Amino acid sequence: MNNDTKVDASPFDTFESRQARRLAKRDAVLLASVRMFNEKGFHNTSLDEVAAGLNISKPTIYHYLGNKEQVLLECVNRGLLLLQSASQDLRGEEGDAVGRLKTYLKKYAEVAMSEFGKCVLRTDAESLSKAGAHSFRERKSQINQELERFIQEAADEGAIAVSNIKITTFAVAGALNWPAIWHNIDGDLSPEEAANELVEVLFSGLQLRS
Amino acid sequence: MNNDTKVDASPFDTFESRQARRLAKRDAVLLASVRMFNEKGFHNTSLDEVAAGLNISKPTIYHYLGNKEQVLLECVNRGLLLLQSASQDLRGEEGDAVGRLKTYLKKYAEVAMSEFGKCVLRTDAESLSKAGAHSFRERKSQINQELERFIQEAADEGAIAVSNIKITTFAVAGALNWPAIWHNIDGDLSPEEAANELVEVLFSGLQLRS
Repeated sequence: MNNDTKVDASPFDTFESRQARRLAKRDAVLLASVRMFNEKGFHNTSLDEVAAGLNISKPTIYHYLGNKEQVLLECVNRGLLLLQSASQDLRGEEGDAVGRLKTYLKKYAEVAMSEFGKCVLRTDAESLSKAGAHSFRERKSQINQELERFIQEAADEGAIAVSNIKITTFAVAGALNWPAIWHNIDGDLSPEEAANELVEVLFSGLQLRS
Repeated sequence: MNNDTKVDASPFDTFESRQARRLAKRDAVLLASVRMFNEKGFHNTSLDEVAAGLNISKPTIYHYLGNKEQVLLECVNRGLLLLQSASQDLRGEEGDAVGRLKTYLKKYAEVAMSEFGKCVLRTDAESLSKAGAHSFRERKSQINQELERFIQEAADEGAIAVSNIKITTFAVAGALNWPAIWHNIDGDLSPEEAANELVEVLFSGLQLRS
């Protein structure tokens, strides 16, 4: 590519550039909000404080996203989408089920350590309105079913040992979700490294292998 | 023992019986509160509702336990004590470290599924006052250190495989704590059975053994 072909930008906004700027602003508000929800908890977060951190006013947040519950729901939706796309990316893939399972668990753990993933795991359905709580529970349970399916497929292939699928799924979900609840799993590791190590522990187990 | 020696109870209260009744009332208030905290979340729980469920008035709760944060702190303390005594009971025991680790993990998981254990794990330090949050974090981290120590001792003995003690402790804690966050691990299993199965998954790992 030749950078010499670049021309000076027009001083007039195009529809696309206005649209992109609007989305970028919305994203900035979302990210500032999710960080504060994760740090202080939903109930102790005030949108005034989020707005002050961005040098904007609270009505600007209302304009882009709505009230505090609507902001939370949007954060949670982002996290749920990330978890869902981790499985969708793998659904079409060839190869052995145990390889897909391992890749899925690593991606899942990485999402769980991201701001939006944390927000999904730290949010109590009880904090949401009835309609919000219902769809939230529904989608979390879909993700649990996805996880169970990946584990079951690897078991059906004869590649992993599973005596109780519900309990195994629970143990795996707990180990991978826990960093979202307790923060700072290990300051020296990147989320990717921490995710790999967690999955290794789950695959190997504590007991020595002969 | 001969039951014929039993005499009719005196209609006058002794100091001990008054004391015992007082403690029983306090326990009833605590149990009703912790159940509601776990079910609805701390922020959505009102002491009025707890009181109504016990056919008492809110000032009676204040009398036995104090305000809503004080009630929560007392619930959390109970749960922390249960977790701490699970390790103290084992500290003096003879035998191999891996046996102690297994027993500890099972007890830990059972406490995590009890109402007071759940409350410890479902409470956000951010919901507490500064002083409350500080001591809460401190004691949770002591329990994490205890868990790490049991794992390390079994590793030192050469009985289990641990490549990264922090990550291993994290995975174990996550798997055992998760039932407290997601409720109803499996309706068909008692907490004891569920605890045993979770610990088995952690010990065996997913990977087949040759």
